[in-house]
Amino acid sequence: MRSCLSIGLIGLGRMGRVYGAHLSQRVPNARLVAVADLKPGLAESFAREWGVPKWYESYQNLLNDNAVDAVAVITPTSTHRDVVIHAAKAGKAIFCEKPISISLAEAQEMLEVVESTRALLQMGFQRRFDAGYIAAKKKIEEGAIGHAVLLLSTSRDPFLPPLDFCDPRVSGGLIMDMGIHDFDVARMYMGEVKTVHAVGGVLAYPELKSVGDVDNAVINMVFESGAVGAAHLSRNAVFGYDIRAEIWGTKGSLQVGYHRQTPILVLNREGITHDAVPHFMERFENAYLAQIQNFVDNVLQGRPPSITGRDAVAALRISIAATTSLHEERPVDVREVETAHHGSVPISRYRGSSDASR
Amino acid sequence: MRSCLSIGLIGLGRMGRVYGAHLSQRVPNARLVAVADLKPGLAESFAREWGVPKWYESYQNLLNDNAVDAVAVITPTSTHRDVVIHAAKAGKAIFCEKPISISLAEAQEMLEVVESTRALLQMGFQRRFDAGYIAAKKKIEEGAIGHAVLLLSTSRDPFLPPLDFCDPRVSGGLIMDMGIHDFDVARMYMGEVKTVHAVGGVLAYPELKSVGDVDNAVINMVFESGAVGAAHLSRNAVFGYDIRAEIWGTKGSLQVGYHRQTPILVLNREGITHDAVPHFMERFENAYLAQIQNFVDNVLQGRPPSITGRDAVAALRISIAATTSLHEERPVDVREVETAHHGSVPISRYRGSSDASR
Amino acid sequence: MRSCLSIGLIGLGRMGRVYGAHLSQRVPNARLVAVADLKPGLAESFAREWGVPKWYESYQNLLNDNAVDAVAVITPTSTHRDVVIHAAKAGKAIFCEKPISISLAEAQEMLEVVESTRALLQMGFQRRFDAGYIAAKKKIEEGAIGHAVLLLSTSRDPFLPPLDFCDPRVSGGLIMDMGIHDFDVARMYMGEVKTVHAVGGVLAYPELKSVGDVDNAVINMVFESGAVGAAHLSRNAVFGYDIRAEIWGTKGSLQVGYHRQTPILVLNREGITHDAVPHFMERFENAYLAQIQNFVDNVLQGRPPSITGRDAVAALRISIAATTSLHEERPVDVREVETAHHGSVPISRYRGSSDASR
Amino acid sequence: MRSCLSIGLIGLGRMGRVYGAHLSQRVPNARLVAVADLKPGLAESFAREWGVPKWYESYQNLLNDNAVDAVAVITPTSTHRDVVIHAAKAGKAIFCEKPISISLAEAQEMLEVVESTRALLQMGFQRRFDAGYIAAKKKIEEGAIGHAVLLLSTSRDPFLPPLDFCDPRVSGGLIMDMGIHDFDVARMYMGEVKTVHAVGGVLAYPELKSVGDVDNAVINMVFESGAVGAAHLSRNAVFGYDIRAEIWGTKGSLQVGYHRQTPILVLNREGITHDAVPHFMERFENAYLAQIQNFVDNVLQGRPPSITGRDAVAALRISIAATTSLHEERPVDVREVETAHHGSVPISRYRGSSDASR
Repeated sequence: MRSCLSIGLIGLGRMGRVYGAHLSQRVPNARLVAVADLKPGLAESFAREWGVPKWYESYQNLLNDNAVDAVAVITPTSTHRDVVIHAAKAGKAIFCEKPISISLAEAQEMLEVVESTRALLQMGFQRRFDAGYIAAKKKIEEGAIGHAVLLLSTSRDPFLPPLDFCDPRVSGGLIMDMGIHDFDVARMYMGEVKTVHAVGGVLAYPELKSVGDVDNAVINMVFESGAVGAAHLSRNAVFGYDIRAEIWGTKGSLQVGYHRQTPILVLNREGITHDAVPHFMERFENAYLAQIQNFVDNVLQGRPPSITGRDAVAALRISIAATTSLHEERPVDVREVETAHHGSVPISRYRGSSDASR
Repeated sequence: MRSCLSIGLIGLGRMGRVYGAHLSQRVPNARLVAVADLKPGLAESFAREWGVPKWYESYQNLLNDNAVDAVAVITPTSTHRDVVIHAAKAGKAIFCEKPISISLAEAQEMLEVVESTRALLQMGFQRRFDAGYIAAKKKIEEGAIGHAVLLLSTSRDPFLPPLDFCDPRVSGGLIMDMGIHDFDVARMYMGEVKTVHAVGGVLAYPELKSVGDVDNAVINMVFESGAVGAAHLSRNAVFGYDIRAEIWGTKGSLQVGYHRQTPILVLNREGITHDAVPHFMERFENAYLAQIQNFVDNVLQGRPPSITGRDAVAALRISIAATTSLHEERPVDVREVETAHHGSVPISRYRGSSDASR
Repeated sequence: MRSCLSIGLIGLGRMGRVYGAHLSQRVPNARLVAVADLKPGLAESFAREWGVPKWYESYQNLLNDNAVDAVAVITPTSTHRDVVIHAAKAGKAIFCEKPISISLAEAQEMLEVVESTRALLQMGFQRRFDAGYIAAKKKIEEGAIGHAVLLLSTSRDPFLPPLDFCDPRVSGGLIMDMGIHDFDVARMYMGEVKTVHAVGGVLAYPELKSVGDVDNAVINMVFESGAVGAAHLSRNAVFGYDIRAEIWGTKGSLQVGYHRQTPILVLNREGITHDAVPHFMERFENAYLAQIQNFVDNVLQGRPPSITGRDAVAALRISIAATTSLHEERPVDVREVETAHHGSVPISRYRGSSDASR
Repeated sequence: MRSCLSIGLIGLGRMGRVYGAHLSQRVPNARLVAVADLKPGLAESFAREWGVPKWYESYQNLLNDNAVDAVAVITPTSTHRDVVIHAAKAGKAIFCEKPISISLAEAQEMLEVVESTRALLQMGFQRRFDAGYIAAKKKIEEGAIGHAVLLLSTSRDPFLPPLDFCDPRVSGGLIMDMGIHDFDVARMYMGEVKTVHAVGGVLAYPELKSVGDVDNAVINMVFESGAVGAAHLSRNAVFGYDIRAEIWGTKGSLQVGYHRQTPILVLNREGITHDAVPHFMERFENAYLAQIQNFVDNVLQGRPPSITGRDAVAALRISIAATTSLHEERPVDVREVETAHHGSVPISRYRGSSDASR
């Protein structure tokens, strides 16, 4: 076992900088030895601020650096294929933020290279590292709720991301961008999903019609075990960030999540009020740290990845099936999502004039 | 305006006795003047205990009693058609507990008679009279959440009713028996339902297979407005009775419901614990009282019914559509539920041997 | 055992009318046969509204009515002595709202008559009949928290009562009017109080200085067992009515009380908000009903009173001791409160000009 | 403004190691350049583990190291005097964990040296850096509750510290060791304390009698403004760590604190249960980090200390007054606590045989 992992970070957008700060300061057995971002000057300024010895504009140069044992890929999803395949061929251990891709064909190509090169690829789904989600998993395994028969996973954002990101050709759309977390959570607690049925619409932000995404969706799931479930997705939780799960069993149930950010109640004539978790970083900062720490530990100790590429593809297929269901207004069997026919997410139906009346 | 309504109560099962107690003691402007139940001796013993002046075994005799101005019909659902039609023809104002019928054909026949006789028929859906559901309605009307775009209504029972009641030929099954409340709530907050899609299964109580019902269901809804929603139904909330609603709007959201029954927390080495609402009477006693009070007030003041037969038929049609969806594994348009084709709830698919392994 | 208790109600102020409504409608084994109030016409109009057969302006006439087996005394505290003594001598069973008196001498005189006439006197302290307080008592007896060692009892009103009621010569002042409930609760959970020490002041309502009361007080208690406790009293819980208790033991603790009145949460940009219990009737309506039901049952079944005159005197003595402590700025031994020296509550120190600057 | 503070850490007990980890990894503008602990080998092993360049057994040697600009003094309280005075004379900026001393004479001597040497001394009271306590302070300043008139500060430990630490000659006893936090909180929200009255006892852990401390105490406070308050202290919150504050004002109130550690609820036949904050590090880890970050920022930016030696002495005097009150069973004026008479905490009254019956 090596005592410390030399790691390179590719992508210094908002999430990349969070991973960079964690890797610089809070993961004792990692050393952030290089950063790369194609935006001119960004890698250098980040490196100087955080004491990272090397920086690159080209991720290829970082991948060719022999001092780098492992990489964290926090680039836009559209670049994951190229970066991960290159990294696998360069012999690096790879941590890749979700989603693996919005194209099933691309994702399967990535898996093939990862498997043929025997690279270690660990995917990022940070809810699995949140104290609440972990405790629920443990309670289920201890038998606290008997046999799990129903799951509800909720994801609600406080506002709409930038429209160009909402474009399904970029992010895959609401169901893929947000729902993929819920589908990963669903698989963690309940096993494989067999069929999905989604309904949704442009209900809160009419400007979304210009890019063809929806802002609310409700998705039914039937698991291969026969159990059932649902994922509820919204972009209009205007009070804050609403992430919850309920797992119902034959002997009890579990509820994961919380809303209050600051431990203070205000009691006055307007009622009794507390604040809310503002957004995902306030909610999941510790989970992001635990997740990258787990990756580092897995590499150093020769353990398999905690979340594999196959997990990422499974969640991707559910996302594609659910998006297809939304567009075709019918239940979709996840097994029907194969490269040839449903290799990417449908994007047409919800496009329209942004000034359409609601 | 008459100062006091002379009311007859038909049906003295568990719910009937609750209505009887309320009408005897807690509705100041009602006088319970007669009770009827076909079980020998039951009406008499109830009448003697509660000071009701008249009792009958035959509901027909009660309906023929000119001292009775209005009736509360709390009989088994299968008898609603005969009792309500007779009552309408006898010129009584009618309060009828949900569901109006499990047969759409029967329900429509009832409506026709009610309308042709100009009888006042008010249906029982007690959640509309719960303080929380009322407050949510008021908040929405005040604009507290902007435009409502998504609804989640949850109903979970702590245990399975008797198997013979679960039989869809008796109760209509889980989706009709419980879900009809959620569909009524959905209509109250969101308007008419256009399509539904249901998934579910026999997941907690294998003995249910012998009668052909399910114990868990998750139902997607699309409203005519384009808004979306879901109803979640279970029979295995073993800790208690779990009734909730969430209404999400463009400017905020509302959560209705509560779990704790007794205002005490226990803090010890096992954690911090409170109890739960045991079942529907503890949760909705005040709502049941407010509901029958409202009926009495409406009759005395010449106001229209708060919940009409058309409301009951609308919720029934959604229940039938959702049950059909469950069985046919496809989304069902509520408008397709007409007398000829879907006049009653499907009952075959979930039947099986009760000793089937799970 | 008689099947029904004929009861007369003396005093038709706000609380009296609540007891009257309960006794008319919600206590099956009581019959409210007479009401009395010295305000001209009030007893008659109440009697006509609620169907009470007899009414009197003079309580003496009600007490002389042989059709009356028991009386509920809900008159101003200053009249309790005369009414209770007369009722005891007239052979009635007596329910008397707290406090028994603000004068220890008077209260002891009442006890002597009650004991010499062998009248049944049950005092009203409704918290003992609240579901939460009862559950806590039961949990302690079951051993859920081990040995109880510390108590905190909290009473906070949402606003100031009318100034003439606040006058300590009328109500005994904050510590007696409100705190007597906390002292009764303290005795119920922890046994007898040995010493008290109170601090407080006119902090929120400067106009109180004109009558010589305080609006906030914090009172330490030492129990005869050696255990300790506190009562916290305020008139400025402007959001609502704040009644709580905490009982701490060697193996756990209990927290009694709640704040939310209506089961709905509002989540919007201002935060997550719920309402509060407005005042004592919303909080304790069921407890008031259970209390008078208990009195009726005790009389009919020949059981001793659940809360005795001695209990009332014990709480009164603690109230006097605490008020003395507030004024004399020293701990006061409850045993030192005897008729001769501390038979009534001190009233001078907190008097002052109401226009004093704060 | 210097960009980075070179800091030495004295004392590597449990709290010292926490500060050491924070200073090594999570305070970007600090550099932990030296550690000292008199336990042989401890400083070296800590230094090697965390990459600290220098280590000492003698704190004097660390203080004589010119590479050290500032020191964090996390040694046993009994050594604070010598270390702080030496550090001040050596020209170091000083962070010192609470309490400054258990002897008022010692503390005043320290203040004199600090003031004559113009050393920067910042005291540690981490609650002031907790998000909830900060939010409450801000709300008060914004006028959310009007004028603050009553404070309740609660501190409860889940178990007894080691007996030798409980010895008042070592820790000052419960009221000083725990209550000093509450007194500091009280001063932050309400201003100076004028008088205190304490009651308490050995109620949960009879073995405490062998050292002369108590395990529960309830302390009344009167502030110089006339406002009132209380501190409640226990060692037997066996479910976890219970730290709360309530601040009541003329227009509203604030409640600070929380109990649930992990965001998961378990709902089963035993009820609805969540866990609790286990102990102070889980509750206040972020506050400890924010506190030492604040010290570093203050030194680097030439700002005065956020919590001064005078603040520490003020809280110490209240602790001594409250302990005196407990022993002498009378209210104590904080101004009467002067070097000559009450310079240290009384220790005799609660000593006794540990096998005394309770």
